[in-house]
Amino acid sequence: MDTAELVELGRQLRVDSIRAAAAAGSGHPTSSMSAADLMAVLLARHLRYDFDRPDHPGNDRFVLSKGHASPLLYSAYKAADALGDEELLTFRTLGSRLEGHPTPQQLPWVETATGSLGQGLPIGVGIALAGKRLDHADYRVWVLCGDGEMAEGSVWEAAEHAGHERLDNLVAIVDVNRLGQRGPTRHGHDLGAYARRFAAFGWHTVEVDGHDVDAVDRAFAEAAATDGRPTAVVARTLKGSGVAEAEDREGLHGKPLPHPDAAVAELGGVRDLRVRVQEPPAARSLHAVGDGVLELPRWERGDEAATRDAYGRALAALGTARGDVVALDGEVGDSTRTELFAKEHPGRYFECYIAEQQMVAEAAGFAVRGWVPYASTFAAFLTRAHDFVRMAAVSGCGITLNGSHAGVSIGQDGPSQMGLEDLAMMRAVHGSTVLYPCDANQTARLVAAAADLDGIRYLRTSRGSGPVLYGPDEEFPVGGSKVLRSSGRDRVTVVAAGVTVPEALRAADALAEEGTGVRVIDLYSVKPVDRGTLRQAAEETGALLTVEDHREEGGLGDAVLDAFLDGRPVPRLVRLAVRTMPGSATPAEQLRAAGIDAESIAASARLLAVQAAVP
Amino acid sequence: MDTAELVELGRQLRVDSIRAAAAAGSGHPTSSMSAADLMAVLLARHLRYDFDRPDHPGNDRFVLSKGHASPLLYSAYKAADALGDEELLTFRTLGSRLEGHPTPQQLPWVETATGSLGQGLPIGVGIALAGKRLDHADYRVWVLCGDGEMAEGSVWEAAEHAGHERLDNLVAIVDVNRLGQRGPTRHGHDLGAYARRFAAFGWHTVEVDGHDVDAVDRAFAEAAATDGRPTAVVARTLKGSGVAEAEDREGLHGKPLPHPDAAVAELGGVRDLRVRVQEPPAARSLHAVGDGVLELPRWERGDEAATRDAYGRALAALGTARGDVVALDGEVGDSTRTELFAKEHPGRYFECYIAEQQMVAEAAGFAVRGWVPYASTFAAFLTRAHDFVRMAAVSGCGITLNGSHAGVSIGQDGPSQMGLEDLAMMRAVHGSTVLYPCDANQTARLVAAAADLDGIRYLRTSRGSGPVLYGPDEEFPVGGSKVLRSSGRDRVTVVAAGVTVPEALRAADALAEEGTGVRVIDLYSVKPVDRGTLRQAAEETGALLTVEDHREEGGLGDAVLDAFLDGRPVPRLVRLAVRTMPGSATPAEQLRAAGIDAESIAASARLLAVQAAVP
Repeated sequence: MDTAELVELGRQLRVDSIRAAAAAGSGHPTSSMSAADLMAVLLARHLRYDFDRPDHPGNDRFVLSKGHASPLLYSAYKAADALGDEELLTFRTLGSRLEGHPTPQQLPWVETATGSLGQGLPIGVGIALAGKRLDHADYRVWVLCGDGEMAEGSVWEAAEHAGHERLDNLVAIVDVNRLGQRGPTRHGHDLGAYARRFAAFGWHTVEVDGHDVDAVDRAFAEAAATDGRPTAVVARTLKGSGVAEAEDREGLHGKPLPHPDAAVAELGGVRDLRVRVQEPPAARSLHAVGDGVLELPRWERGDEAATRDAYGRALAALGTARGDVVALDGEVGDSTRTELFAKEHPGRYFECYIAEQQMVAEAAGFAVRGWVPYASTFAAFLTRAHDFVRMAAVSGCGITLNGSHAGVSIGQDGPSQMGLEDLAMMRAVHGSTVLYPCDANQTARLVAAAADLDGIRYLRTSRGSGPVLYGPDEEFPVGGSKVLRSSGRDRVTVVAAGVTVPEALRAADALAEEGTGVRVIDLYSVKPVDRGTLRQAAEETGALLTVEDHREEGGLGDAVLDAFLDGRPVPRLVRLAVRTMPGSATPAEQLRAAGIDAESIAASARLLAVQAAVP
Repeated sequence: MDTAELVELGRQLRVDSIRAAAAAGSGHPTSSMSAADLMAVLLARHLRYDFDRPDHPGNDRFVLSKGHASPLLYSAYKAADALGDEELLTFRTLGSRLEGHPTPQQLPWVETATGSLGQGLPIGVGIALAGKRLDHADYRVWVLCGDGEMAEGSVWEAAEHAGHERLDNLVAIVDVNRLGQRGPTRHGHDLGAYARRFAAFGWHTVEVDGHDVDAVDRAFAEAAATDGRPTAVVARTLKGSGVAEAEDREGLHGKPLPHPDAAVAELGGVRDLRVRVQEPPAARSLHAVGDGVLELPRWERGDEAATRDAYGRALAALGTARGDVVALDGEVGDSTRTELFAKEHPGRYFECYIAEQQMVAEAAGFAVRGWVPYASTFAAFLTRAHDFVRMAAVSGCGITLNGSHAGVSIGQDGPSQMGLEDLAMMRAVHGSTVLYPCDANQTARLVAAAADLDGIRYLRTSRGSGPVLYGPDEEFPVGGSKVLRSSGRDRVTVVAAGVTVPEALRAADALAEEGTGVRVIDLYSVKPVDRGTLRQAAEETGALLTVEDHREEGGLGDAVLDAFLDGRPVPRLVRLAVRTMPGSATPAEQLRAAGIDAESIAASARLLAVQAAVP
């Protein structure tokens, strides 16, 4: 396409964005129009992509970080002949693939769901890093960012990571249209403000008039030719560009144009230009799915081991068996024990430094490229990446997250380091699996099982050593549980997981000596829960006592309720959980202070058993 | 103090840090030692602080962003005569005020809890901004940061905000000791890497040898004298400095020194220097707690209004009545309606742009200074600040968070914009209050009530208009609920909140026409829940049906369980919630697709009523 055709294409993308939003009665045409010329040049001149084969390993990757500009993306798909005009006009209606913000669940050309700002670049960094260090492919990653989202720290976390990793296959295109949702951005049209920041983080930068298609073409060529550094193309644009009543005006964010027909006419009417997008270079998919035999570490009953140690050793073993497993860590690999994986598989280990958002985004980027990521940090610090976990679930990404140092049982470090809200956070993630092992063999099995699950899988591990309760050949299906104590005369069931399992066993054994039968269930699969076993225990023993090293809301106690929502009567339920703000103390003191140690469990179980005896 | 004395003081701070960690058997002496000279100079020469009056409005504010260096902080308190040597050696033991990471709940001189890295600077920015724009006081805010935490995006989010606000009362001291937890940081001793980044964000920067007390003194003086910009003092230091076996060595993070007695001897033994800290300048506390009469907006029954509109109007009215109320927003004030507050109280309105972590940190900083902050963005995007909310709870901060656009009922924008996990997140925060109003008058009352609550209070609002169900004089105590339908023959109770309340009423009215009594409870107080009303309803109607525009985990359905954990039998419970990944659709289509509209409620209630009739 020559200059005149590029200009025409830019107009078509504007026109189609306006039409789609007008048909929907909502959407973001003005945010689309500012980037229309950038998109036209990218599509016609620089992107190498086979729309018939979105899984082509040589395809460039395009991420619309400013996801609200979805009309532009869908208009580009139309221009690339990937979808038709009729579908374009289904935008934002029930059942349409063209959602308000793009998701890969609906459209095969979308790499990752966006719409929560400041996430596209971090995930793009992950994809570019996969290209360099895992896929060893030459694809380029183009990320179209808004200027407003540059306020998100996650953007600079990503910029730091990309600069440090020298990702010259990554191009951030910043659409500096000066206007955010409710008014001007911090820096308005000061392109230098953005360029200086990117440059400080080690990027090559190019400032350009984003409506001069030849200049944009040169900028993209310069970006593609830059070695050893990622490039930021910082483009001066006008929101609503090309339509007088909208151009550079406030108050028109996220709304159809007031007079769409007039606007289309002003832009020269509807066109039907089709772009022949460059073919990607030949490439092959590299992630050799492991055919190795999985030899998990083994512990004998009666050994002592920390589940975090088991996690690290099992992950290393899994990495040996499977060539597609990769590990990431937030600069605490000596604590989470991912250092064991790093030692054995340095090429598939990714140090993310203290940047949890980037870590999860990078894991999402790896998952997009077909790798099987395990990302670890303290459970407490995964809260930092909550929005990224949420969006990864919208994308349908398969990612395992490991939160170590869960609960008050870490001891002296105090509440800032204690994951006490993580089960609540992870249970509420759509389609998630939440696993909380209590011993080393169980941990190892669950590490392996997680690799083949869909969606977000969360594995909670503990700092301190505990007894090995299960033999190395025991199996732990996801959605299952283990009944560890049971008799014909149980009068209460204690439901525990992780560090409270040994406490529950001690309590049950103490009560057994007193002549009171107590059933103990190890609910290692917190989501999904084992409804059958819980229901049976409730019916046979009459009362459930849950005990967890977690806040009382949203954790194990609430999870148990899932088993009793079928409209049948619910058993008596009592919950032990962490109700106060812990300070520093030894692990044993912490469990006692929180009222989740063996003695507290025994006291509550005794009371429930007595109550059961009273008609 | 002269140079020699400063050197001695630096040694004493090292010695005491070593001794405290040795006594505890854990802690971070090496991270303390790298910053000991920086702290010595700050304490003896620059900090203006009255340790007898931590609430002195003229006091400088010191934030230990690298909270794990708590031994250094406590050693400094000892040097300032604020605590004794005996207490110093209680470090990290049960009941001690000297926790592993400092918290203001324990020590009056601690401004904010730290220990989750990358939070001290953002909160310091909030305190400095309060100094400039609210307190109109001359205090300076000194934040001691680690180099490792510079990887956190939140640091650059804060740097951007501070640069933009020209906070020349803010000094970030970066302790560049080269070593993180598991090994070298990204930039090692490259001071320029940090200085360039801060400079790009508009900061003045000074690079200095952090063990040259005279140079440090000059750097702090330069920082204090800098006008119109915040200053970053980037200091080259050695981790474990002063002790040969620890200095600049890997593998010693977060551990007592291997030979503490020898280390103390190497540093010249135990000293007992006392520092006379400069007095703060006279100042007075400015936040005139409002004595105005609160005139909340009023709606009449039968009107239509969105709870987000009611939020904005009520917040503006509250700001008129109370001079201590401030509002913050994440660049969506036209959506959350905080723009109404901004218009009436521009001096107490803070635009945080799209930076949710900074917004919550800033709110925490304002709360530290005695202001009453209300911070708003979409409910979905509050997940971005989860770790900051968690840590604000550790600090015991009083902050109201408003999440608008909750649930699938927002309609076309799709899942990226839908807050569906927010109730789970906020319920699990220690000491939180979670409120979810269903109409405009209720919203207004709860906005006002939130101001006087302790801890984190969360207010969930909705995008679309709904019927005004309550009169303007109705009261809504926190922890209460409203029974909206009740008869002597109710056979099921529907528990709803927010947008599902009108749906529940429609369902109940439909069933009433069929002759089936359905009780409806508006559970606007999700935490704490109204146990009495729920228990009574369960006993009188036999079954509870919860219905919520939220994921099934951790929200209203789980909250209801709180009423039934007293060991008495639990009623039959059934839960309606959002179980699938929504796409784009109209609000009504969304409620129907999620199975939480009136028809779905009616169908489930009918089934429960029939089951109840079967013996």
